[in-house]
Amino acid sequence: MLDIKIPRATAKRLPMYYRYLSGLHDAKIKRISSSTFAEAVQVDSATIRRDLSYFGALGKRGYGYEVDNLLDFFKKILNQDHLTNVALVGLGNLGQALLHFNFHKDSNVRISAAFDIHDDMINTVQSGVPVYDVKDLQEQLRDQQIEVVIFTVPATVVQDLCDEAVKGGAKGIMNFTSKRLSVPKNVRVQNVDLTNELQTLIYFIEHYEGE
Amino acid sequence: MLDIKIPRATAKRLPMYYRYLSGLHDAKIKRISSSTFAEAVQVDSATIRRDLSYFGALGKRGYGYEVDNLLDFFKKILNQDHLTNVALVGLGNLGQALLHFNFHKDSNVRISAAFDIHDDMINTVQSGVPVYDVKDLQEQLRDQQIEVVIFTVPATVVQDLCDEAVKGGAKGIMNFTSKRLSVPKNVRVQNVDLTNELQTLIYFIEHYEGE
Repeated sequence: MLDIKIPRATAKRLPMYYRYLSGLHDAKIKRISSSTFAEAVQVDSATIRRDLSYFGALGKRGYGYEVDNLLDFFKKILNQDHLTNVALVGLGNLGQALLHFNFHKDSNVRISAAFDIHDDMINTVQSGVPVYDVKDLQEQLRDQQIEVVIFTVPATVVQDLCDEAVKGGAKGIMNFTSKRLSVPKNVRVQNVDLTNELQTLIYFIEHYEGE
Repeated sequence: MLDIKIPRATAKRLPMYYRYLSGLHDAKIKRISSSTFAEAVQVDSATIRRDLSYFGALGKRGYGYEVDNLLDFFKKILNQDHLTNVALVGLGNLGQALLHFNFHKDSNVRISAAFDIHDDMINTVQSGVPVYDVKDLQEQLRDQQIEVVIFTVPATVVQDLCDEAVKGGAKGIMNFTSKRLSVPKNVRVQNVDLTNELQTLIYFIEHYEGE
């Protein structure tokens, strides 16, 4: 794997670039101008150029970018060339939706184990994924060597479950609750708080209208 | 409503502050020290102090913050004192989950209209919300004066539907697809791309481990 340190803001845009290029590849488009690229992903071309420059100069002036070259490159960067297994904890509505949602389709990520507290769920297979008792979270993560865990559980229980996951070897947590998690320094948390996102959107509409 | 311009980063933290304070209020806690506040929301106390300073000095040195005062303040800022109606377009798995999810519980946001293309959904009530034909999106938004629209539809159709929504008066779009939307300047888009979030998380785990 390539081992390059890039700014966080750049890293956040990479999956978006990747998915756009995948679409071009599927449409058998070989070359893309930097202005078309910029317009499609809604990022200005100077920023794209700078982002890509962290990996060496990949575009040519007046020529643009070669889709397949760029795509091979991103695949390595984003580990699209190997599958990452992920655990999902909590099979309420949001959890069920994520199971169906299937990250697998346009990424190389797959939910391979799910956890719940309800007896009627435990030891069943939901959307092709085995469901375990949440009591066995630590043990199963360790046995299955899963390092990425998605939490769609009530905010009141997420910290305890997160502690269990970290003991089981979790290195990355995707947290859908409104609770901010305390984790050791070597564990990364990505917060996805949908209520927060919506409230921020509404706040901006009402305060920044017409700017 | 208070009309204060604040930095975007500050605005993004406000809903989180608000929810934490709501929890304290429910637990009948009257006063909170700035260090406890900082630890609970995982934001350092200097940043919290600066965030709050945009609204005037609300904390007292050696005393901390009064929960109820702060909460009343945030309610006004975040429009928690009036209900915002939201439309949801696309009742696939993610859309259904958002309907059940119910923003209403800890926010003053409510999905009041849903839209889908499937005949067996149209003109039914799902989780208490009426479902309309997506063909009537523009007209219904205008009639119901809904300005915030959530898209949980395939990426291939979202731009056309977004155009319809904007014609119907939408000012804020929450986009769950991987497609970047083109909108007029007075419309704000909040992108929530779950695959992107997960890929970024995995990227960071594999590249920034132990930092």
